[in-house]
Amino acid sequence: MTRSFLMIGQSNMAGRGYLKDVKRIYDEQIRMLVNGRWQTMTEPINYDRPTAGVGLAASFAGAWRLKNEPEQIGLIPCADGGTSLDDWGVGGALFDNAVVQAKLAQRTSELDGILWHQGENDSVAGRSDAYYDKLCIIVDALRLELNTPEIPFIAGGLGDFLSSGRYGNYFTEYNEVNRALQTYAQTKPNAYFVTSNGLTANADGLHFDALSQRKFGIRYFDAFHGRKSVLSPLPDELDLIVTIQDRALTKNEKSTLLEISFARGELALHELEEQLAKLEQ
Amino acid sequence: MTRSFLMIGQSNMAGRGYLKDVKRIYDEQIRMLVNGRWQTMTEPINYDRPTAGVGLAASFAGAWRLKNEPEQIGLIPCADGGTSLDDWGVGGALFDNAVVQAKLAQRTSELDGILWHQGENDSVAGRSDAYYDKLCIIVDALRLELNTPEIPFIAGGLGDFLSSGRYGNYFTEYNEVNRALQTYAQTKPNAYFVTSNGLTANADGLHFDALSQRKFGIRYFDAFHGRKSVLSPLPDELDLIVTIQDRALTKNEKSTLLEISFARGELALHELEEQLAKLEQ
Repeated sequence: MTRSFLMIGQSNMAGRGYLKDVKRIYDEQIRMLVNGRWQTMTEPINYDRPTAGVGLAASFAGAWRLKNEPEQIGLIPCADGGTSLDDWGVGGALFDNAVVQAKLAQRTSELDGILWHQGENDSVAGRSDAYYDKLCIIVDALRLELNTPEIPFIAGGLGDFLSSGRYGNYFTEYNEVNRALQTYAQTKPNAYFVTSNGLTANADGLHFDALSQRKFGIRYFDAFHGRKSVLSPLPDELDLIVTIQDRALTKNEKSTLLEISFARGELALHELEEQLAKLEQ
Repeated sequence: MTRSFLMIGQSNMAGRGYLKDVKRIYDEQIRMLVNGRWQTMTEPINYDRPTAGVGLAASFAGAWRLKNEPEQIGLIPCADGGTSLDDWGVGGALFDNAVVQAKLAQRTSELDGILWHQGENDSVAGRSDAYYDKLCIIVDALRLELNTPEIPFIAGGLGDFLSSGRYGNYFTEYNEVNRALQTYAQTKPNAYFVTSNGLTANADGLHFDALSQRKFGIRYFDAFHGRKSVLSPLPDELDLIVTIQDRALTKNEKSTLLEISFARGELALHELEEQLAKLEQ
């Protein structure tokens, strides 16, 4: 049965890396929930805004597949840009939507983990003080609603670039939020912290760039797989990214990608037919 | 209060028109439901597949706005490519997801209509015989679940191009489906049929092209506004499209579009700042 993971938080969980900056990850055994059903994953996975792009979930799933071939993984995208912990409050629209999407996924999968990245919007105006307590309430309620009391909860740190970027004045307490996330991982069962050390941003100084998101996903998977916090960059993260991105496509995957290009108007009909014919040779 | 519309059906409701083929529709009073909350609408609205593009909902909303300025309209995207009426069966994932999304929307809006386009996948293998009866069950259940017993249900016809395109063999019964949709509109209260006469397709002979989707949205709105079926093309549909697409943007809309371009990496920081400064002049 498909093993599924809920993606929640704000823009850096949704993903704002530029698609052009990294190679595509495409694998029919990596699925994403769309309208309550599984589709083959393509990026952007979490289309919350017109700026959605590469997030950490694709390389997380790719790393999962390296350890779990030939099983299937499913991603449940529910992150939403610019949202605070109050926005994620129990019974609010974001929380309820995430619960419903995860429950739809649970009809045909086993929910195996919660991937969290959030906190930029709680890094200002004294909000970081209440971060730990608010997070406890949300995660407890989510585990209860989903009937997964011991499900791993994996939270990544906020980027060190935040305070120096264009929007730096909004993130004066990002270190306090990072400490709250680490304390959460240290004090709560089945919770893990993943460092963002060494990761870099787009020109906005706000969003992890695409390669950094790929690395972050590898670290998130290491935390999930080892049931441990990941407190420094992994020596093999670049190698793993190459392995995942350069995986040989099956004939069916190649033909589906051609059909997608045709449907998007990137290939003429005769080009599609020529290239499909080549695949048959 | 925002007036909202549920978008359901298959790919031609989700939209596969090419974005490059038409001018953008951008209006802060046209919203779309994302993760249970309202965001300013951008296309693609209904991101069900990597091929998602221009659908009929944007020009529908633009036409609604021309009649309802300065009120706000909200679109609830739940259409899913390649789906049959059986896929939309009551209690299935698509149906349940649409109900939940509409209910999330109802927390902060009045649900005013259901926009339906579907049937390609029921145009083969004798499936069209059961179209009318299956549709009755689905729409009745939807109205009941959403507590909107008299909500207008607007269904567009399948394109006349279907049988001659690349996938033509799959659509031998598209005329029978169109007849079932018309019969539905004639026999059921608050149900309207919208013709696809004169509309054209992408090179795939399957999906309405972008300009046709713009026209279709105008026709859908005419059906909604007049509470009547629309059985032939409207004389002013091209004029209305120009009016909607050429609407003057507010300063705030212009600056948001610049911020989006910057976040997507299409503008450098100094370009963003220069252009934002110009807006202030």
